[in-house]
Formats: sequence, C-alpha cells, structure tokens
Amino acid sequence: MDLKRIAKDTSTVLISYLTFQAVKTVLNQLRETDPPRAYWLNAFSTKETLQDGDAYLTALLAEQGDLAIRIMTVRQHIAEEISEFLPEMVVTGIQQANMEHRRQHLERMTQLGDAEDVVEAELIQEPSADSDAPLD
Amino acid sequence: MDLKRIAKDTSTVLISYLTFQAVKTVLNQLRETDPPRAYWLNAFSTKETLQDGDAYLTALLAEQGDLAIRIMTVRQHIAEEISEFLPEMVVTGIQQANMEHRRQHLERMTQLGDAEDVVEAELIQEPSADSDAPLD
Repeated sequence: MDLKRIAKDTSTVLISYLTFQAVKTVLNQLRETDPPRAYWLNAFSTKETLQDGDAYLTALLAEQGDLAIRIMTVRQHIAEEISEFLPEMVVTGIQQANMEHRRQHLERMTQLGDAEDVVEAELIQEPSADSDAPLD
Repeated sequence: MDLKRIAKDTSTVLISYLTFQAVKTVLNQLRETDPPRAYWLNAFSTKETLQDGDAYLTALLAEQGDLAIRIMTVRQHIAEEISEFLPEMVVTGIQQANMEHRRQHLERMTQLGDAEDVVEAELIQEPSADSDAPLD
C-alpha cells in the first residue's frame, strides 16, 4: 500500500473539491449582488470544467481574472478554516460507518440464521398429514 | 459562508474517496493472490457504485461480506495513517497553486501591456511612408 501516493492523490482531490465549494460560495454571493455575473459564472462552471480545480482557475483567469482571484482567496480561506477539523471528522466518520455496517451485517446474518432455523423446523414437521404433495 | 456544512460535505466526499482508494488497494492485492476474485470485484466496482462509498459497502456486504469487511478495514487504516498530514498538504498546496496562478496572471497582464505598448508605438508611427494600405 503506497500511503505516500494515496496522501498526495487525496490532497489533489480535496483541493479540487474545495475549489468547487469556493465557486459555490462566490456564486451565492453574486446572485445577491450581481445576478448577470452570477449567471455568467454559473454557465462557465460546468461539472466538466470543475473536475480539475486548477485547470478551471487557469481558464477563468483568462476570461474574468477578478472572479478567479476571488475564488482563489475563498478556497484558501475555506481550507485554512476547516482543514484542522477534517482528520478527526474523517477518521471518526469511517469508524462509525464501519461499525454500523458490521452491526447491520451481523443482524442480517442472525436473521438469516433464524430463517434457516424456521425452514429446518418446517422440514422436521414435513411430511405433514394434510400436505398436498408430500416429498417423495 | 456556511463553514460547518462545507466541513461536513468535505468529510463525506473524503470518506468516499478513501473507500475508493481502499478498493483499489484490495484489488491490487487480489490480483496477486486470487485473480478470479479480483476480476469479480473489479466488475462489481464501477464508477457509479463507487460514487457513494457507504452505499457501495452495503451492496458489497450483501454479496461478498468478507471482501466488504476487508475494504472497511483498509479504508480505516488509510484514514488513520494519512489524515494527520492532509491539512498541511491541502493548505500548502492551495497557497502554492494560488501563488503560481497569480504569477502567471501577472505575467500575461504584463505581456499584454507590452503588446499594447507595441501596438501604440506602431499607431504613432502610422501612417508610415511605405504602408501598403494606410488607415483611412
């Protein structure tokens, strides 16, 4: 398991995701202060262009430099504000989700066990006197 | 800006992404130890099913419980190992990328400025004596 590479890839994905969150934030602000620009930015920001946060910013810088710089400032602010809480949120989130998956899985196994017991009990009763088609 | 909601959404995205990385890790291990199972898991793990890590695990638990539990163990291990490094990687990554975007943007503006100076200088020279098609 190449943890160094995974950490690098995860950080890249995270940076793109925070860029997307910054675009959403700026879009919401523009919708109140400058609707035509919000409309323009919304059209510019498709799912495809936002896939790679830094390619998106390069393209936006060429079109509307001040918007790109505003998004860059916002994404840095978001990163600085939330990143210290992320490790615990992620580790605890995974631990809890894993526990819940295991609990549900065990429950299903137990129910399956119960169901098998029921089937077995029924088999022991077979062939019943009023059975329409007794086995053998 | 709703930082609390952004942190929550980011953590959810991150958990799904680490689940995807855990699937990749287990797939690589299986390719060496049990190719037919690697083939099966690869077919099961499409981009669509992996979009939501926990829905994926629920589905996999119903089909191949031990594989799901192995992936759950691996994603928790990855999260515990890399999450402490992520905040700095992300904040530094964004700062550096932002700086690079600003540098390139300034460079383009300066070149544009130079280009405008050149055009202006040419306009001052116009109409030149040897011009083929003088303006006006």
